[in-house]
Amino acid sequence: MNHDGPIGIFDSGIGGLTVVRAIHTALPDEATIYLGDTARVPYGPKSPATVQRYATEILAWLLAQRVKAVVVACNTATAHALDLLREQAPVPVIGVIDPGARAAAAATRNGGIGVIGTAGTVASGAYRRALLALRPELRVIEQACPLFVPLVEEGWFGHPATRLAAEEYLAAVRLGDVDTLVLGCTHYPLLAPLLAEVMGPDVTLIDSARETALELTAVLDRAGLRAPAGGGTPRHRWAATDDVERFAMVGSVFTGEALASVELVDLTHE
Amino acid sequence: MNHDGPIGIFDSGIGGLTVVRAIHTALPDEATIYLGDTARVPYGPKSPATVQRYATEILAWLLAQRVKAVVVACNTATAHALDLLREQAPVPVIGVIDPGARAAAAATRNGGIGVIGTAGTVASGAYRRALLALRPELRVIEQACPLFVPLVEEGWFGHPATRLAAEEYLAAVRLGDVDTLVLGCTHYPLLAPLLAEVMGPDVTLIDSARETALELTAVLDRAGLRAPAGGGTPRHRWAATDDVERFAMVGSVFTGEALASVELVDLTHE
Repeated sequence: MNHDGPIGIFDSGIGGLTVVRAIHTALPDEATIYLGDTARVPYGPKSPATVQRYATEILAWLLAQRVKAVVVACNTATAHALDLLREQAPVPVIGVIDPGARAAAAATRNGGIGVIGTAGTVASGAYRRALLALRPELRVIEQACPLFVPLVEEGWFGHPATRLAAEEYLAAVRLGDVDTLVLGCTHYPLLAPLLAEVMGPDVTLIDSARETALELTAVLDRAGLRAPAGGGTPRHRWAATDDVERFAMVGSVFTGEALASVELVDLTHE
Repeated sequence: MNHDGPIGIFDSGIGGLTVVRAIHTALPDEATIYLGDTARVPYGPKSPATVQRYATEILAWLLAQRVKAVVVACNTATAHALDLLREQAPVPVIGVIDPGARAAAAATRNGGIGVIGTAGTVASGAYRRALLALRPELRVIEQACPLFVPLVEEGWFGHPATRLAAEEYLAAVRLGDVDTLVLGCTHYPLLAPLLAEVMGPDVTLIDSARETALELTAVLDRAGLRAPAGGGTPRHRWAATDDVERFAMVGSVFTGEALASVELVDLTHE
């Protein structure tokens, strides 16, 4: 068993850093390596075949870094490519959809669950399928919120424009008598305080990033892959496929820490 | 002279369709072919080298379609790649920056010009350079408006959230005593009514799409490349590098016409 390898985490851009933050909290002894495919962000509007090709290229790069587990910290890539990556990878591969769906199915009392995400995630129906596979009687209301990602990347977490957008996007969800809302995009945890206000105190917010970190912990424990505690401060590597300066700048907002050096990775070999 | 070839127009995505609309209005006898690089949109946050590589690939594809002129209907690609494309192309290549800059320099009475665009366009300083080359005494205030593109693509042209964003982005520009505002992104003409309201009646809006179509007309006339009038309805082709369905849907908003069939083009040959 390769206890020493880092955990590989990837996303189309910087959103997956909320997952990294949750992993650092849940697993403080684990080294991590994060790749943001900023040259090809966003994945949301792209076709499943394109996203699968990108994800396969990233998996190969992460495996070359000798990762012991892979976290697909991107809802679109999870929806389109998780099964394919699991076929290809000799290490555990964890997506962000199943952990969030399980937490939501366990949390709801009235059986009504809202799911918000990018256009691509919602169109894929991945959360609906995952939820109904767990509990077929659930009522699931999905809503695409395409403006949330750019609003978060602008840093407008509590801006009046963000509130207006949230009120418009969530209107149908609120009418649907849901008591649980899945934040089905890795950017959205940064909007959690605003979304909680808009949804009201009776609705439980499910943070996919946090749930994915808990799932990773369980998977590492089951496989005997946890790094031993007390091994010193683990190393964290950051990589992006384009514009590492912007990645470092916006990324520090997401992780709550300054990102040391960001490596530039060329996946296209051109 | 190849009077019969179409005019090739490209953009990182669908924004350049505002330029196509302006070209169809100014040059109703000309056939056009539009390529939206939707697989790799947006160009704004990408590095100059990456944008140059993309633009070179697109130029090769357009030349293979036997275009008689090329319009770079993308501010980021114009800022980073226009000179390079002009070196490589055996046909006239027209960007969106110089025509807008010339119109703004001619329109201002008090010498104060605001320029709004994507983060990439503003960071490039391309409009500032073009304006100061024309009239060194001009005062230029540039402002990145990263949310305008997603707001336009959501169709929120007059939405209260869009107005709030516009008021915030334009606050510094309004304080700068400008009487002319350059819409330095091909998406922005669709926000023109809202932007005119926010800026007030004393500010002239410069629509780069319209100015580029007028520049193209002049270039074709000088080169003797105009299609003869009365040659029947010209053919218009539409192409995208990914998700042609979404392209057709959002594109119809931009052009004001239903886009017939959209061709899928693979520039990466993978």
